[in-house]
Amino acid sequence: MERIDQGMPFLLRYENVAWYEGGKVRILDRRVYPREVRFEICETYQEVVQAIADMVTQSAGPYTAVGMGMALAAYQVRDKGRAEQSAFLQQAAHDLAHARPTTASRYGKITFRCAAVAEEALEAGADPVAAVVNDTLQSLERRYRVMQLVGDHLETLIPEGGTLLTQCYGETIIGTLIRSAARSGKSFRVFCAETRPFLQGARLTASCFAQAGFDTTVITDNMVAYAMEREGIDVFTSAADAIARDGHIANKTGTFQMAILAKHFGLPYYVTGIPDKDKRSAADIVIEQRNPGPVLTSWGISNTLPEVKGIYPSFDVTPPHLISGVVTDKGVYVPGLLDRYFDTEVREFY
Amino acid sequence: MERIDQGMPFLLRYENVAWYEGGKVRILDRRVYPREVRFEICETYQEVVQAIADMVTQSAGPYTAVGMGMALAAYQVRDKGRAEQSAFLQQAAHDLAHARPTTASRYGKITFRCAAVAEEALEAGADPVAAVVNDTLQSLERRYRVMQLVGDHLETLIPEGGTLLTQCYGETIIGTLIRSAARSGKSFRVFCAETRPFLQGARLTASCFAQAGFDTTVITDNMVAYAMEREGIDVFTSAADAIARDGHIANKTGTFQMAILAKHFGLPYYVTGIPDKDKRSAADIVIEQRNPGPVLTSWGISNTLPEVKGIYPSFDVTPPHLISGVVTDKGVYVPGLLDRYFDTEVREFY
Repeated sequence: MERIDQGMPFLLRYENVAWYEGGKVRILDRRVYPREVRFEICETYQEVVQAIADMVTQSAGPYTAVGMGMALAAYQVRDKGRAEQSAFLQQAAHDLAHARPTTASRYGKITFRCAAVAEEALEAGADPVAAVVNDTLQSLERRYRVMQLVGDHLETLIPEGGTLLTQCYGETIIGTLIRSAARSGKSFRVFCAETRPFLQGARLTASCFAQAGFDTTVITDNMVAYAMEREGIDVFTSAADAIARDGHIANKTGTFQMAILAKHFGLPYYVTGIPDKDKRSAADIVIEQRNPGPVLTSWGISNTLPEVKGIYPSFDVTPPHLISGVVTDKGVYVPGLLDRYFDTEVREFY
Repeated sequence: MERIDQGMPFLLRYENVAWYEGGKVRILDRRVYPREVRFEICETYQEVVQAIADMVTQSAGPYTAVGMGMALAAYQVRDKGRAEQSAFLQQAAHDLAHARPTTASRYGKITFRCAAVAEEALEAGADPVAAVVNDTLQSLERRYRVMQLVGDHLETLIPEGGTLLTQCYGETIIGTLIRSAARSGKSFRVFCAETRPFLQGARLTASCFAQAGFDTTVITDNMVAYAMEREGIDVFTSAADAIARDGHIANKTGTFQMAILAKHFGLPYYVTGIPDKDKRSAADIVIEQRNPGPVLTSWGISNTLPEVKGIYPSFDVTPPHLISGVVTDKGVYVPGLLDRYFDTEVREFY
């Protein structure tokens, strides 16, 4: 099989995201990359759930990890009776989907499909583990082919020689944008907000763009207004963990204020991704409140006194009036009219 | 001498800022507090200059450090002839004032006054070192008495039971505000933006407020909009490293975008401090560009690949239309009419 991820920066190759082999799933620990290239080895699907909950992998990483986790679930239950296998696979599909609340509906589509694939293989006397691994890879390829259309549309919105500002790590769009720019020969600079507390912007996004040969600069999250005013930012873009049909989007905390700042400076903010059919409005977006530990530390070292508190909302919600356009596989939508995305045929890729 | 700093949190006591004793100046290393209580020991005034340039101390810390540095300069040149002593003191006054460009005019007032005090002592056959130390302490007391008026005015702008958002570490105003609130019995919560890259908000401001008994919460710098929308922030306040007469202010990078966000949410932003008579407009504010190392690291640990670049503008400039009021010793001024501050008598305390 010709794979779309080959030739991409280290982080974007499937085997460096999550990989099933011999009764184990290995997941790149994105919390320490590039300081350290370390893989978490999971021997049960429950450990995969924990790894996702602990943000060992994030962004689109769980797309791969939950599929590989389902292969591992099929492996765990290989010697049991059929009824027990079915129940176990259903439980695993539920647990893997719900590892993080904001994205449960997206990942559920994958995990329950994997459960069905395993069932089919079991009924046919075939190997359910190989079937799920193969199905996961095929689904990734389907997804990347659709998402490449998103990257192609985004690429047209960046001026030649311009400067793009990013937030957090939207791995799929980074990969497709890099591919699109390589094809068109377009060159631009990238400014990455570092994205505390986990520094995904500095560690992951900046690493990918730099490895792909782009002139890449990291700024702390409080330098956004300065950079917009004095460093020639042309476009702000981010992916989204949820895109409601009314044009509200949820993405890594900080996105909301960057959108406000872009509006203040008259700069366009383009969100990339596929609208979530089951999310009608902001009311359908669950904001995950995480343990504030990482907010009070850097690289595990305490930043303040023990009696000081922290908050850690994993996402914030940006309203449509702060978004210039939602870049989808079918083109760029006016955020307030995003529901029209569902008026025409939707490419299914789960 | 009854000292105003006694009974204050650890960081706000003079001897924990910078202190001359026996031919040495010890300066608390604010880059590592409270993780570590470590003092930099300077044996020459040039080492004091370097410590200020390296941000061993910052905020109002240099007010004390440059005075103690001048005492050290007087000690260094104790055995030389009068002409050499005078030249050395003038050189020290210049070098200490210019350790950081944005604040050179403020600190020059102190250092050249110290040089004059040392000269006087030398002419009178008195100990110039003791004279400079004593003069520095007296000047701190004068300054704190004036700045207490600023803290008293700020205190009236915070609603009882409300929530104050701070940026970076404005030590003088923190001390005077804590004193004022203790006196009036007013209670409020404090949210501190952590203020990357040096984390002065998390390490210093949050520590002071928590030690003084306030309910204190740290947020990462990208959670400001979230906190303003959902955590009940009532007032945003910051000190300033420069306040121009036309109402532009320079403060730690991030202040500018917090001011934009406050305006977006309809929250007041109050700047505290004394206008700089010699700065007519934003054009007179020099923004210091520092080595980007700290932006690319956390606690000295690299956050990204070596080929990724960084920028480190130490300050940003907030225009008057984003400021609700400038809180001075003489009351709260409309930013666009700040020049009126100089229409009435100015309290000299340098």
